[in-house]
Amino acid sequence: MMQASVDQNSCPTIDDVKAAAARLEGVATRTPLLRAHALETALGAKRIYLKPECLQRTGSFKFRGGYNAICLLSEEERARGVLAFSSGNHAQGVAAAAHMLGVTATIVMPEDAPSLKIERTKSWGAEVVLYDRYSQSRDDIAADIMGKTGAVLIPPYDYAPVIAGQGTAALEVVDDLAALSDAPKKIDAFLLPCGGGGLTAGSALVFEKYYPKAQFFVVEPKAYDDATRTLEQGTIQEADVSKKSLCDALLSKSIGNLNFEILSRYAKGGLTVSDKQALQAVAYAFTELKLVVEPGGAVALAALMSGQLELRNKSAVIYLSGGNMDIDMLLRASMSI
Amino acid sequence: MMQASVDQNSCPTIDDVKAAAARLEGVATRTPLLRAHALETALGAKRIYLKPECLQRTGSFKFRGGYNAICLLSEEERARGVLAFSSGNHAQGVAAAAHMLGVTATIVMPEDAPSLKIERTKSWGAEVVLYDRYSQSRDDIAADIMGKTGAVLIPPYDYAPVIAGQGTAALEVVDDLAALSDAPKKIDAFLLPCGGGGLTAGSALVFEKYYPKAQFFVVEPKAYDDATRTLEQGTIQEADVSKKSLCDALLSKSIGNLNFEILSRYAKGGLTVSDKQALQAVAYAFTELKLVVEPGGAVALAALMSGQLELRNKSAVIYLSGGNMDIDMLLRASMSI
Repeated sequence: MMQASVDQNSCPTIDDVKAAAARLEGVATRTPLLRAHALETALGAKRIYLKPECLQRTGSFKFRGGYNAICLLSEEERARGVLAFSSGNHAQGVAAAAHMLGVTATIVMPEDAPSLKIERTKSWGAEVVLYDRYSQSRDDIAADIMGKTGAVLIPPYDYAPVIAGQGTAALEVVDDLAALSDAPKKIDAFLLPCGGGGLTAGSALVFEKYYPKAQFFVVEPKAYDDATRTLEQGTIQEADVSKKSLCDALLSKSIGNLNFEILSRYAKGGLTVSDKQALQAVAYAFTELKLVVEPGGAVALAALMSGQLELRNKSAVIYLSGGNMDIDMLLRASMSI
Repeated sequence: MMQASVDQNSCPTIDDVKAAAARLEGVATRTPLLRAHALETALGAKRIYLKPECLQRTGSFKFRGGYNAICLLSEEERARGVLAFSSGNHAQGVAAAAHMLGVTATIVMPEDAPSLKIERTKSWGAEVVLYDRYSQSRDDIAADIMGKTGAVLIPPYDYAPVIAGQGTAALEVVDDLAALSDAPKKIDAFLLPCGGGGLTAGSALVFEKYYPKAQFFVVEPKAYDDATRTLEQGTIQEADVSKKSLCDALLSKSIGNLNFEILSRYAKGGLTVSDKQALQAVAYAFTELKLVVEPGGAVALAALMSGQLELRNKSAVIYLSGGNMDIDMLLRASMSI
């Protein structure tokens, strides 16, 4: 069986992303790069491209990192099973990857996670353990389970195999841009949703090589603007996790150490959006783009729509990072317009 | 200015589709071919690919034919403006194409068309004339407008430039299948939603050349199964247009003459689905595929999900032809599961 080829505590490189892409070939959905004509017209932009990771297996990019990480475990580690804690998208990504690789999975989820995410995680055969986000420590619960079963933790973002896996989405963007007959001469900006920094750091490893001059922005909910402050101040800042936000996919306390190391090298900065702006982007995605995008997955679109970036005659790529949302959330979004 | 290069009353050929594709290059959205892993697992199929035309400009494939048709008008004809009658998707396609080509558009729509479709048609600057589907003749209304303004009618399906335009979606499917590194050796079946037969006939022109042995099915609402009966009986059959169906995009009385000529040559037959099955497919698309697909656009998916075709170890391509649906319809769909 495969042994870990990545030192899991050292910073991954673009070569790790390329190795992850080889593992994911034919396994992950190769999500398309979509041109958003209506957004171009609205913003006077030259080109706006969307990377709809909501179309990925399990409804978010998280499958990429989860699958890559489990592939990199030893046979002995796989036999012990894997453990993850997550509000839902990492949970589903790990659960689906474990199922496909014949590994048992236990997922620790907050009891206020969207019910759709809890159900879908269970549907992959994972054991789901619920906890109270405000009174219980998920770390204690995870440690308890690991002590009993020996399960191997798959961290959600501060972990080289996960970062490398998430970065494979950016390799697809680079390839698809290169294949366009009418590609713009340059990409001025990349906008990506950011929670703990797995997707953003993995993508930064790729874009810093192919688009060194582009402006790379992480986008967050206003109440969880820790990455934005982290990039401004040059040291990791924390969010007040007692605050609530509808962007449940992005509510991490801070970005991870590896994620910080990568992002502080390449990212231009952070942008933040209100929950209302995120909901407006969810509604726009439904009505105009015909894509199902959850609030956390829609923050980069929300930043674009709120005009925080001058994109007249410019070109940008934005990620729609997940679509695990039930109809109640969409109704709420439709009332936000 | 361009003159009509297609004899509009004779049957189009694949060369007309290729000419249409050249006109639409960089104008229409090149919709992706998506692999549907979850459907493959559910059906035991080798490959299921989706062609999501809901992601097309104006939310359905109709933009393709509308744009191609207006391109083929003479300068004098364009100056008179265009006229279309449609429950909504052809309306939007023609309105958007006319707007982009600087041509005025008048659209005759039934007053019970989805309000989203009426609004979106107006948003392209078209003049919308509403009529009562059950008591008024849209032909009389259209003739009246043409008499007054001299506007040129863009028929919704029985018209060579429209058929050729709609067929460009199939050229993309052929190209995308050829470019796959892990493509299946053959495609066993194509399933496409069918109203008047524009999309199906245009696509048949392409698939009959590249996939002569595939089984090509038109899919319809049960209450409007005229194309299915037409293919069985070998002469054009009519639907009872007093019947209601939620698949508003597919409620034409019969397929057109040109459409019949093409489909009777290549189509294997028709499949029909109930409104409930169409709604279940709409709900599945939302929850699992993260795509917004209207009932009429989801009938091919519904046929697949209802197990009417044995696809174990086989490969199929299905079209999701439109996504112009409001949240009320989605709510209705979510209650159908």
